[in-house]
Amino acid sequence: MRFQLSKPTNNKQRRNMETQGKVITCKAAVAWGAGEPLVMEDVKVDPPQRLEVRLRILFTSICHTDLSAWKGENEAQRAYPRILGHEAAGIVESVGEGVEELKAGDHVLPIFTGECGECRVCKRDGANLCERFRVDPMKKVMVTDGKTRFFTSKDNKPIYHFLNTSTFSEYTVIDSACVLKVDPLFPLEKISLLSCGVSTGVGAAWNVADIQPASTVAIFGLGAVGLAVAEGARARGASKIIGIDINPDKFQLGREAGISEFINPKESDKAVHERVMEIIEGGVEYSFECAGSIEALREAFLSTNSGVGVTVMLGVHASPQLLPIHPMELFQGRSITASVFGGFKPKTQLPFFITQCLQGLLNLDLFISHQLPFHDINEAMQLLHQGKALRCLLHL
Amino acid sequence: MRFQLSKPTNNKQRRNMETQGKVITCKAAVAWGAGEPLVMEDVKVDPPQRLEVRLRILFTSICHTDLSAWKGENEAQRAYPRILGHEAAGIVESVGEGVEELKAGDHVLPIFTGECGECRVCKRDGANLCERFRVDPMKKVMVTDGKTRFFTSKDNKPIYHFLNTSTFSEYTVIDSACVLKVDPLFPLEKISLLSCGVSTGVGAAWNVADIQPASTVAIFGLGAVGLAVAEGARARGASKIIGIDINPDKFQLGREAGISEFINPKESDKAVHERVMEIIEGGVEYSFECAGSIEALREAFLSTNSGVGVTVMLGVHASPQLLPIHPMELFQGRSITASVFGGFKPKTQLPFFITQCLQGLLNLDLFISHQLPFHDINEAMQLLHQGKALRCLLHL
Repeated sequence: MRFQLSKPTNNKQRRNMETQGKVITCKAAVAWGAGEPLVMEDVKVDPPQRLEVRLRILFTSICHTDLSAWKGENEAQRAYPRILGHEAAGIVESVGEGVEELKAGDHVLPIFTGECGECRVCKRDGANLCERFRVDPMKKVMVTDGKTRFFTSKDNKPIYHFLNTSTFSEYTVIDSACVLKVDPLFPLEKISLLSCGVSTGVGAAWNVADIQPASTVAIFGLGAVGLAVAEGARARGASKIIGIDINPDKFQLGREAGISEFINPKESDKAVHERVMEIIEGGVEYSFECAGSIEALREAFLSTNSGVGVTVMLGVHASPQLLPIHPMELFQGRSITASVFGGFKPKTQLPFFITQCLQGLLNLDLFISHQLPFHDINEAMQLLHQGKALRCLLHL
Repeated sequence: MRFQLSKPTNNKQRRNMETQGKVITCKAAVAWGAGEPLVMEDVKVDPPQRLEVRLRILFTSICHTDLSAWKGENEAQRAYPRILGHEAAGIVESVGEGVEELKAGDHVLPIFTGECGECRVCKRDGANLCERFRVDPMKKVMVTDGKTRFFTSKDNKPIYHFLNTSTFSEYTVIDSACVLKVDPLFPLEKISLLSCGVSTGVGAAWNVADIQPASTVAIFGLGAVGLAVAEGARARGASKIIGIDINPDKFQLGREAGISEFINPKESDKAVHERVMEIIEGGVEYSFECAGSIEALREAFLSTNSGVGVTVMLGVHASPQLLPIHPMELFQGRSITASVFGGFKPKTQLPFFITQCLQGLLNLDLFISHQLPFHDINEAMQLLHQGKALRCLLHL
């Protein structure tokens, strides 16, 4: 085991007993408008209702989905004021009525796409979009009563939730279906990464593409998700991993994640898929689009081998464009697919994955490029926005 | 076993000995231009070259891909004169140098998408687009020497091949990788259907969608392929099969293939996917687009359950339109896929499937709606074109 013990939490637990059932006033980073700096302010957090859990967030980082929502890229998703954030780790402060599998003091990961365990999706192998608690960027209130649990401290104005989690706050209220209990010996700061980006990338390589040993892989976009795909591909024994990014600064970290060949699309007029085929005759077996670009998606599709090629889409495409694929191209031995959270069932499958990561199958340290205190969250947003950070871990 | 013995072939075999190595002059239905009636005329058929086989075709039927090529729907595919046809059965007349697994007199099915057995696709489970002999509507000459084996009898003008097979001819030359030997006890007239349409539909249900027992299915387009999907779904124990067609005449045969609910899109302004959801709350688990319509494809996609839905595309789309799907829709728990020949590896997997069919797992008789002599091929083309025939078996 490479990890260290977290600090004992007895004092915290004792404090939690004093707040149970009461409104907590704490700091949160509130989004008041598209692209406006987040405002660090006092918010009131209601106690958890039936089947809900109130968490103290200890670590959170910023993922591109937060960035996209902050910029208001998708008009339909604009809802302010709102508390963003979904990749995090924390401790249960208190639980609402009916919550049996969690209690105050438990170490947990918030999960943006939940698992009720009872719907037909949850009961089916190979599917993870729970009918009740799946990720929904439009959802902004709690399921239980259609209300928010956050209010401005000044004038009691409701503040919307985000992605079932809203982790840019010292305390948050989450449905218990979206909370995963973890071993208290696990280092929360590291495993917080597994509540979104790293699991999404590795899961795409393992669960969705099901990369086979000695196969070839091309990854378009070398942010945290792209590098997680690379780590996943390496763990599966891929023989060659090609990385594509317009920012050559990404190539050094890429090398650490097992990528041996790099293509900068800006360096040549030749189409990227032709350059991929110069490296792997006939094209790669698997390609991953992690850039959120329609052009990259088309190149990723064409980079695969016509016969066995699989393209997995991970990037978020805000534009209303159609898939850049002709229907007949799906008859040519190439397929395209996508998944949420790497296809992992969060409660059922993540615990084993976390253990594998902590045993060294993946290098989690690679992904934490920066660490900052919570109140510097706007700086952290800019680091990601400018492509300078993979993950900036915020300490609350 | 429900089938009867075919007639003994000893006389035919003896005749074959006389033609071996020589040019054969026989009748073929030649396409001279897009949409023009086929011309039944004498053609010369060269002996098979290395790794090729010359077949005497006994039965052929017409599939929509023949119809589409005949109409010249895809400009790039227009090449005349040409001998179309690919769904057939026959007997080996003679074999070229190096052919070891076939000999004169063998009963065979021509296979439009071959299996060389040696390329990386052939060696991979779950893939069937052989690198050397996969279906290619643009291909019009033999691989061996880039020439045709057909010539007009009058002036020795080369006549192009089609889909590796060209079965609208009493004799044809095919690569041995595209010829499947079958048990001489099998009824060739029936199993000829398994060389394209029925296998494509059943394979889509079994190999591609992998329909699970007690699941729900919607089929868009109730031609031979759509009904074959229904037969495949029924054999897998689907609990409800919904058929969608603008021609209500198709509903009676649909009922025989296990379809219990029908939707005629013309009967209501309501979107078809909404009508499907009125029958199956939340949508079906599997949908199949067998109509070759972009609108049907979109409705088929939306008819599936968001969480576990799979859409399989089987229809041919000649237009240059893009897939009618937004990239983000692939994140919503619905997937879309396509395959050629139902994902069957023709040489490896078809023999067992043929046996299953002949043992009564599927009702092959259902698909033969008409039978005509070969010289009435233009009438048979019209029957299919007008939606009056499922399969019109032509006797040569």
